[in-house]
Amino acid sequence: MANSKFEYVRQFEQLDTLLPNTWIVVRIDGRGFTKFANKYAFEKPNDKRALELMNAAAKAVMAELPDITIGYGISDEYSFVLHKTCTLFERRASKLITTIVSTFTGYYIHFWPTYFPDTPLSPPLPSFDGRAVCYPSVQNLRDYMSWRQVDCHINNLYNTTFWALIQLGGLDAREAEQTLAGTLAAEKNEILFSRFKINYNNEPEMLKKGSVIFRGYELVEPGSHNVAEDVENIAEPIQQSKTQLESDRKKRVKAQITVEHLDIIKDEFWDRRPWILSNKPGKIPKQP
Amino acid sequence: MANSKFEYVRQFEQLDTLLPNTWIVVRIDGRGFTKFANKYAFEKPNDKRALELMNAAAKAVMAELPDITIGYGISDEYSFVLHKTCTLFERRASKLITTIVSTFTGYYIHFWPTYFPDTPLSPPLPSFDGRAVCYPSVQNLRDYMSWRQVDCHINNLYNTTFWALIQLGGLDAREAEQTLAGTLAAEKNEILFSRFKINYNNEPEMLKKGSVIFRGYELVEPGSHNVAEDVENIAEPIQQSKTQLESDRKKRVKAQITVEHLDIIKDEFWDRRPWILSNKPGKIPKQP
Amino acid sequence: MANSKFEYVRQFEQLDTLLPNTWIVVRIDGRGFTKFANKYAFEKPNDKRALELMNAAAKAVMAELPDITIGYGISDEYSFVLHKTCTLFERRASKLITTIVSTFTGYYIHFWPTYFPDTPLSPPLPSFDGRAVCYPSVQNLRDYMSWRQVDCHINNLYNTTFWALIQLGGLDAREAEQTLAGTLAAEKNEILFSRFKINYNNEPEMLKKGSVIFRGYELVEPGSHNVAEDVENIAEPIQQSKTQLESDRKKRVKAQITVEHLDIIKDEFWDRRPWILSNKPGKIPKQP
Amino acid sequence: MANSKFEYVRQFEQLDTLLPNTWIVVRIDGRGFTKFANKYAFEKPNDKRALELMNAAAKAVMAELPDITIGYGISDEYSFVLHKTCTLFERRASKLITTIVSTFTGYYIHFWPTYFPDTPLSPPLPSFDGRAVCYPSVQNLRDYMSWRQVDCHINNLYNTTFWALIQLGGLDAREAEQTLAGTLAAEKNEILFSRFKINYNNEPEMLKKGSVIFRGYELVEPGSHNVAEDVENIAEPIQQSKTQLESDRKKRVKAQITVEHLDIIKDEFWDRRPWILSNKPGKIPKQP
Repeated sequence: MANSKFEYVRQFEQLDTLLPNTWIVVRIDGRGFTKFANKYAFEKPNDKRALELMNAAAKAVMAELPDITIGYGISDEYSFVLHKTCTLFERRASKLITTIVSTFTGYYIHFWPTYFPDTPLSPPLPSFDGRAVCYPSVQNLRDYMSWRQVDCHINNLYNTTFWALIQLGGLDAREAEQTLAGTLAAEKNEILFSRFKINYNNEPEMLKKGSVIFRGYELVEPGSHNVAEDVENIAEPIQQSKTQLESDRKKRVKAQITVEHLDIIKDEFWDRRPWILSNKPGKIPKQP
Repeated sequence: MANSKFEYVRQFEQLDTLLPNTWIVVRIDGRGFTKFANKYAFEKPNDKRALELMNAAAKAVMAELPDITIGYGISDEYSFVLHKTCTLFERRASKLITTIVSTFTGYYIHFWPTYFPDTPLSPPLPSFDGRAVCYPSVQNLRDYMSWRQVDCHINNLYNTTFWALIQLGGLDAREAEQTLAGTLAAEKNEILFSRFKINYNNEPEMLKKGSVIFRGYELVEPGSHNVAEDVENIAEPIQQSKTQLESDRKKRVKAQITVEHLDIIKDEFWDRRPWILSNKPGKIPKQP
Repeated sequence: MANSKFEYVRQFEQLDTLLPNTWIVVRIDGRGFTKFANKYAFEKPNDKRALELMNAAAKAVMAELPDITIGYGISDEYSFVLHKTCTLFERRASKLITTIVSTFTGYYIHFWPTYFPDTPLSPPLPSFDGRAVCYPSVQNLRDYMSWRQVDCHINNLYNTTFWALIQLGGLDAREAEQTLAGTLAAEKNEILFSRFKINYNNEPEMLKKGSVIFRGYELVEPGSHNVAEDVENIAEPIQQSKTQLESDRKKRVKAQITVEHLDIIKDEFWDRRPWILSNKPGKIPKQP
Repeated sequence: MANSKFEYVRQFEQLDTLLPNTWIVVRIDGRGFTKFANKYAFEKPNDKRALELMNAAAKAVMAELPDITIGYGISDEYSFVLHKTCTLFERRASKLITTIVSTFTGYYIHFWPTYFPDTPLSPPLPSFDGRAVCYPSVQNLRDYMSWRQVDCHINNLYNTTFWALIQLGGLDAREAEQTLAGTLAAEKNEILFSRFKINYNNEPEMLKKGSVIFRGYELVEPGSHNVAEDVENIAEPIQQSKTQLESDRKKRVKAQITVEHLDIIKDEFWDRRPWILSNKPGKIPKQP
C-alpha cells in the first residue's frame, strides 16, 4: 500500500528559517500564572521557591541545549539566547521554540516536588508559551537584555512597595494602587523606608536583578580588547571545522552552568565573560 | 526610571499569523524517542503503556484547549486540528505550537508514574517539538489525516513483522531487515501467518489504526446532508455572536473526550460525526 | 578565480512560497496618482483615456501570463487572480508580484502615446506597487472581487456628485465636501437628479461597474451544475498531465481577452463563465 | 451602501516587514533577456547601449528613491541597497520590491529610444523581476557586493573568450564551449592573447568591473577612522530628528548621482566614500 496519494499534503509545510548571522532570543512566558500562583499560594510579592524552580528548569534547558549561550529570568518568564552563528535545527523557528518550551516545561514539572514538597501539582498543569526574535547586532542583543532587566527593576520596586502597603500598612489593593499611582522610583523608595523601615537596596539580589544563567569559565581582565567588535566581524553562519565545533561542544558540556544575580546592563558583565558573545569556550576554573 | 531607551527592541518581533479560513494542524513529535524508548525498556514493536500515556496527555491537551476539534496519534507523534474559523491567540503560529507542545509535555511527565509506576523518570526528560501547517480545504485536511493513518498502517505492519522475525524467528536485526527488503504488504502478512501463525487482522486496533481523539456527541445517521460542503461555504473567520460562541464553548467543555481506534480515511467516520468539521457541538448523549 | 568565498551570502535569501491550493490575488496600485493625474490634466471625476490605458496594460499582462484567470480594474488599481492550482514561479510571492507589476508598468508607458497622443510622458514616470494575498475558498475570492466592485460604486457615486457640485454647481471643494458629508447613496442620487438632471443609472458602465477582464469563451447556460463546488473539491496543487496542461495553455493563448463592465457580485457572471473558477478552458466562439 | 459585508477579506493580507537594523538588497533581473537580446540584435558578448540603458534606468530609480545608498549592475541585473536604518514603506518587502521594479521598468522603456533609436520596442516588452534579501552586518553586505562583482568578472572573461573564439576564431558555439571547458582564468587570458592579440586588461572597465552607482560627494582620505565599525554601533531603526532627516534628504537630492566602474571588493572604495555605509550625506563638491 503506497502512501503517495496523500503525501502531497507535505507541500503545505512552510519554511520558517530565521535570518542567518542574527542573535536568536527565545522568550518563554508562564500561561495564566497569576491564577496558577494563587492556586498554589505563592508568597507575595515574590515566591523564592517559585523563582528557584524557574532557575532549575532553565539550567536543565541550558544543559540539554549547549547552543544556548546565556539565559535571563524574571518572574514567570525566561529568555534564552542562541549565538548568531548557531545552526541548530537549521535555525527553524518552530523547532527551536517548541524544543525549548517543551524541555523547560518538562523540568518545571519534574522539579516541582523538590521546591514545593507539600503541594503536589494537579491539573490544570503549569504551561509556557514562547516566541523567537532575531537581533542583528550585539548592541541590539544587549539592549534586549537591558530591557528585560530594567523591567525587572521597575516591576519589583512597584510590587515590593505595593505589597508592603497591604501586608504591613493594612491597605487594601485599591488603596495601595492609588497610593502608588504616578509615583517615581525615589518616591517608592521613600514610602518603603519612611513607612516600613525597608531599605530597598537591601532586598535580595535575585528580586532586584533577576537571574542570569551562563557557563562559568574563568573571568578575564576587562579592557584587553573589544569582544563585541570581533563578534560583529563574524559574517558567516558557520565558522569552524567539525573538529573545532566538537571540541567546543565538549568544553561547553563540561563547564558548570551557574545562576547569578548581576547587572547585565553595564559593560563589565560582558567584558569579563567574553565567551558569551564570542561563543568560544573559556577556561574551566580549577577546582579548589 | 523609564524603560523607553531599550524598548525599541520590541520592534524586532515579527508577526506569524496563520492565514484565516484554513485548517490548522499542529503536529508534535517526540525528540530522540528511539533512545528514550531504550532507556525505559519500552516493549517492541509497541509499548501499550507508552501509547496510552500519549493518549492521556492528548486528552488533557484537548480538555484545556476546546478549540481543538480532533486529534490523531501514532507512535510518538500527535496531530491536533484547529477549526478553520479558530481565532485562538489571533492564530499566531508560535503561540499555538508552544502552548500545545508545553501542555502536552507537562501532562506526559505528570501522568508518567500512572503508566510506568516502576520506572521513575530521570534526566534527560522526554520532550517534544512541534510545527503548524495550514490546509485550505476539508479535502486537504482529510488527506492529511489519511496520510498519517496510512503511515501508521505501513509502519505497524513492517514493525510487527520485523520484531516477529527477531523475537519469534531468532533472526538478528540485519537479517530481519534483509528479509523484509522490498516486500509488499501481502508478503508481510504471509510471513506473519505462515511462519508465526499471526493473523495481522487480529492485532490490536490501537496499533493498526492509531488513536483518534474527539468529543463524543451522539452519532448521526450519515447521508442526510453534506457537512464538508456546508463547511466550505463558511468564508469568514468569525461566524458567531459572543453568546453563541460562549454557549458552544460550554457544550464542548461538557462533552466527554474519547479515544477510539477507527478508520478515518473513509467517509463514514466524518459523516457520522458532523461536529468535527462543522465546529457546531452535537448532542450530549444521555447517560445510561 | 572561484566565487565560493562570497557565495555564502545566498543563504540569506528567504523563501516566500504562497500556501498551495489558495487563490492568489495580486493587486497593483498607482503610486502618487493624484499628483500624476494633475500633471497630465486628467479629466474629473474620471478620465476615460486613463481608464482605457489601464485596461490596455491589463490585457497585455493577461496575454503574457496565461495563468491569470481574471482581472478587475478601477481607477488606478488592478487586481489579477491566479487560480488556486497555479504553480507559476513555484508560487514565490516576490517573483509573482514583481513580474506582474513590471509587465503592467511597461505596457502602461508603452501604450501611453496611443491614449495621450498630445502629452508625452516626462519624469517622474508613472509607477505601480503591488502585493499578493491568498484566499482559501471560492467564497473568499468572490467576496474580494465584490469588495472591490462595491468600492468602485461607492467611490464613483461620491466623485460624480462631488464634481457635479463643483463643475456644474459652482461650489468649491470644501463646500462640496460639506454638502456630501454623511449623505446616503439615495441622497447623492437625489442631488444629482434634482440639481443637475443627471440620472446616475445612465452614467457609463465602465465608471459604475469597473472593468472586468477575462478570456472570452462561449457562455454556458447557468444552473446546469455548481462550478464553485467542483472547484472546492480540487485539493492538490497539480491536477493534470503535462499534455493536458500544454493543451489548456494553448487554448488560453488562442482565446480573445475581453474587457467588459459587468456585475461580478451576483452569481450570474460566474455561472455563465465556469472557466474562470474551474481553470478549464471553454469553447472558442465561432467567428461570425 | 456599506462595504462592511465584504471588507473582512482585508484580514487575509499578511505583513511582510523586513527585520529592522539590517541592510536590504533589492536585486532585479531581466526576464527572458537571452531571447530579448536576440530579438533586438544586441551585440555579443556585450552591448554597450544595452548596459548604458540599464545604468540610465538605475540612475532614475536612485533619483526617485533617495533611500537607496548604492546600486550595482551587471548584464541584465541590478542590485539596489537600502541602508539598515531605512524605514521606507515601513520596510514592507512587497512595497519595496514592486516600487523599485516598476520604476526601473518604466525608465528602461522610456529611455529605450535614446539608446536604440533605430529599433522601436514592440510586444512582448522587456520586464524585470525582483527580490529582497536582508544582510545583518556591513561585512555581509560587502560580501554580497563582492559576490556580484566576482560573478561579473568570471562571466565577462568567459564571454569575451567564448565570443572571440566564434567571431574571430571561426568556431561554432559547441566548439567554443568545448575549448573553454575546465579552463582557468589564466588560460582564458592566454587564449585571448595568443590567438587574438587581445589583452583582457585593456577591455572596457564597464565590462570588467560592472557599474557602481552612488551619490558623488567629495572623496575623503582613507584611514582616518573605521566607518563600518561606527555603522555597526547604530542599533535602532530611527536615529535622527525629523529636521535632520529632512536636511539629509535634501542633501541627497542635490547630490549628483554618478555611475563608475570601480573595484568594490577592496576597502578603498568604501573608505573613501564613507557616506555609503554611514548614510550621512557627504560634502557636495564645488563645481569647477
